[in-house]
Amino acid sequence: MQKANVEPSSKRPATAREQGIMCGFPPPPDKQPTLENWDLPPFNRWSFQNIRGLFPTTDVIRGAGAARHFERDLQDLNGLTFKGADGSVKTVADWLTESYTDGFLVAHRGRVVLEHYLNDMAPETPHLSQSVAKSLVGVLIGVLHDEGLLPLDVPLMEFVPELVDCGYSRATLSQVLDMQSGVRFVEDYGVPYSDMTRIDIASGWRPPQGDRPVSSIRDVILTLPQEREHGLSFSYRSIETDVLAWVAERRTGVPLARLLSDRIWSRIGAEHNGFFTVDRAGTALADGGFNATLRDYARFGQMMLDGGRAGGRQVVPASWVAACRDGETHKFGEPYSNVAPQGAYSRQWWVHDVRRGNYMARGVFGQLIHVDPEAEVLIVKLSSWPDYLIENFTRDALAAATAIRQALSER
Amino acid sequence: MQKANVEPSSKRPATAREQGIMCGFPPPPDKQPTLENWDLPPFNRWSFQNIRGLFPTTDVIRGAGAARHFERDLQDLNGLTFKGADGSVKTVADWLTESYTDGFLVAHRGRVVLEHYLNDMAPETPHLSQSVAKSLVGVLIGVLHDEGLLPLDVPLMEFVPELVDCGYSRATLSQVLDMQSGVRFVEDYGVPYSDMTRIDIASGWRPPQGDRPVSSIRDVILTLPQEREHGLSFSYRSIETDVLAWVAERRTGVPLARLLSDRIWSRIGAEHNGFFTVDRAGTALADGGFNATLRDYARFGQMMLDGGRAGGRQVVPASWVAACRDGETHKFGEPYSNVAPQGAYSRQWWVHDVRRGNYMARGVFGQLIHVDPEAEVLIVKLSSWPDYLIENFTRDALAAATAIRQALSER
Repeated sequence: MQKANVEPSSKRPATAREQGIMCGFPPPPDKQPTLENWDLPPFNRWSFQNIRGLFPTTDVIRGAGAARHFERDLQDLNGLTFKGADGSVKTVADWLTESYTDGFLVAHRGRVVLEHYLNDMAPETPHLSQSVAKSLVGVLIGVLHDEGLLPLDVPLMEFVPELVDCGYSRATLSQVLDMQSGVRFVEDYGVPYSDMTRIDIASGWRPPQGDRPVSSIRDVILTLPQEREHGLSFSYRSIETDVLAWVAERRTGVPLARLLSDRIWSRIGAEHNGFFTVDRAGTALADGGFNATLRDYARFGQMMLDGGRAGGRQVVPASWVAACRDGETHKFGEPYSNVAPQGAYSRQWWVHDVRRGNYMARGVFGQLIHVDPEAEVLIVKLSSWPDYLIENFTRDALAAATAIRQALSER
Repeated sequence: MQKANVEPSSKRPATAREQGIMCGFPPPPDKQPTLENWDLPPFNRWSFQNIRGLFPTTDVIRGAGAARHFERDLQDLNGLTFKGADGSVKTVADWLTESYTDGFLVAHRGRVVLEHYLNDMAPETPHLSQSVAKSLVGVLIGVLHDEGLLPLDVPLMEFVPELVDCGYSRATLSQVLDMQSGVRFVEDYGVPYSDMTRIDIASGWRPPQGDRPVSSIRDVILTLPQEREHGLSFSYRSIETDVLAWVAERRTGVPLARLLSDRIWSRIGAEHNGFFTVDRAGTALADGGFNATLRDYARFGQMMLDGGRAGGRQVVPASWVAACRDGETHKFGEPYSNVAPQGAYSRQWWVHDVRRGNYMARGVFGQLIHVDPEAEVLIVKLSSWPDYLIENFTRDALAAATAIRQALSER
């Protein structure tokens, strides 16, 4: 194991508190996030840990069972080094600091070997995980499918008849799970009038534009046209997860938050309730509005690493878990292959390397659950990056994961 | 004990679910509450149990301790009768049904003798309690005063300097606790441009009016003028509680929700977190934005009934609790004396009869914590009345409380 003797990084981003964000009674107006800027720097340093203070929400209840106890076997990985995307040698400690980390957890063989909080995050703090929500919803679909409720290969309009006039009418759950429908949805973050911005407005994450009436998430879905054949290839579009949630709710008659509570959150030994943001119609933002504590994300990830088992029961069918990392038939091309040449997208999970089968739940601004069954290593990182996507940060996170996995394997 | 053999009331109000409110994926547009109507019938049947789905909120954390176990000694009080305000003889069961009850709990000598849920409320459901929040905040002030943090008789501008130019500059905590400041605030519910409506808009409970910029709760406070001498007489004005909260936050540097968690909620054995709605500046709506479960309201009330003690410790000073029911020097006149000729308002509590010393936390739309130390009876009622104030409903609740107290005393 390689170690370095380096000074602490000087590139420590300021915490929300150091910047005075939402400090004071009342905070100065320019230190209060608005609907225009809450998820952008510097406000996201505060917002991602305080989503309930900004939006209406709905609980994903943990239930009455005991929290899963994570054994601890803490190890000093701070001095471990890896080669960063900029060519420099970084320590894990510096990387965590520089990459706007709020919470970071590593588990090896089911034991926590590293748990670290920055930016005033604490073990009880719920943190927005953006598109990590997609992987949760995907797994829920797997459980409902296993219960016989959701056949994967029938046209979606059979579940939700009003889809008949939009691009999703003849797409299947299987295609949408893999984000292979032929529906047009432009995933441009922060761009006025993009499809993504329409969803942000509908979900209450952005202010209305001019006089345009605010529609709901589902109204937006109904406007999306088909632009190519379904099932041809992967194209990352957040809205596909909202379609999954709609199908699950309509089929069961139960809201997404309660489905997730019943089927997943209450069965993995979560310690705290999670929660989703909701739109005016009560629709949970399935594609990215979920919040939970660092350890509860880890409990979810560990269940996946353990083949779908937690607390002595099969929470998610083992075959479904296997499909989430079986990327051979789901390998993607550019631009996705730039960062992961052997990557794939399967069942709402990012497979980093189809040969190895390590896979990830990921969200913009630096959210990550990295599951490596072969090495029995789980890594969770919650962040408040200063931009939606930062390619070097993504590369560094992957390099750090590899270095950590290798170091742990040697022990 | 008088009993009647009567048919169930035919005047059962429809539940939220029966009216289809927020049912369906998505619910029909006319079944979705809006900012204009969420607290009015029929929508409040749903909203008061689902505040988190409508507004940004902040937790009042219960802490890590065990929940206070309420022993149970259930008794059948359903057939108990009393004379209603309309002259008819009512059973407790019919009264509960007709008066839009969501949750109802009676404790006698510290044991639950009746606990009843309607309108799909459940033991885990948080319920908005409107101005019951005032009594919680008042008690918090008592604790902070006891800690030496808040002298009661200094001008408020010494705590919050920006109050200097508004009506509150020279009022004292003592005066504001008893709602005896001389500040003008028109407590008209649902009336456009009233002071109350300005607070509703600032706190996010109502949509903005026209082009008027939305200010925060505290901006509104700063606009209120003095209209008479401080300390002359009681006049119920919600805003006074928001002033208390501002002083407490500024003096301690800690947000209201955390103060209440630290000093009260974590010490009474609450089973669930409570929460407040917050405005854009993160200000908790101290005068009426609190939510908790029926049993947790009961735990709070029982602590008061027990002279400020809970879990073997003095949570609130006994002298402060005594002051909350000592109305002799706080007796009020009309219109308040219409319903309570011997009534008073002291330290953010309604004393029903100063000779008896039974006192209440109350909120519009039928929220009530009735504490009767002499009879060792605690009554909590959470409701979704079809109007802010319904005098006959108030009279019935008081008559029912008397009948229940007398019946229990005979046992």
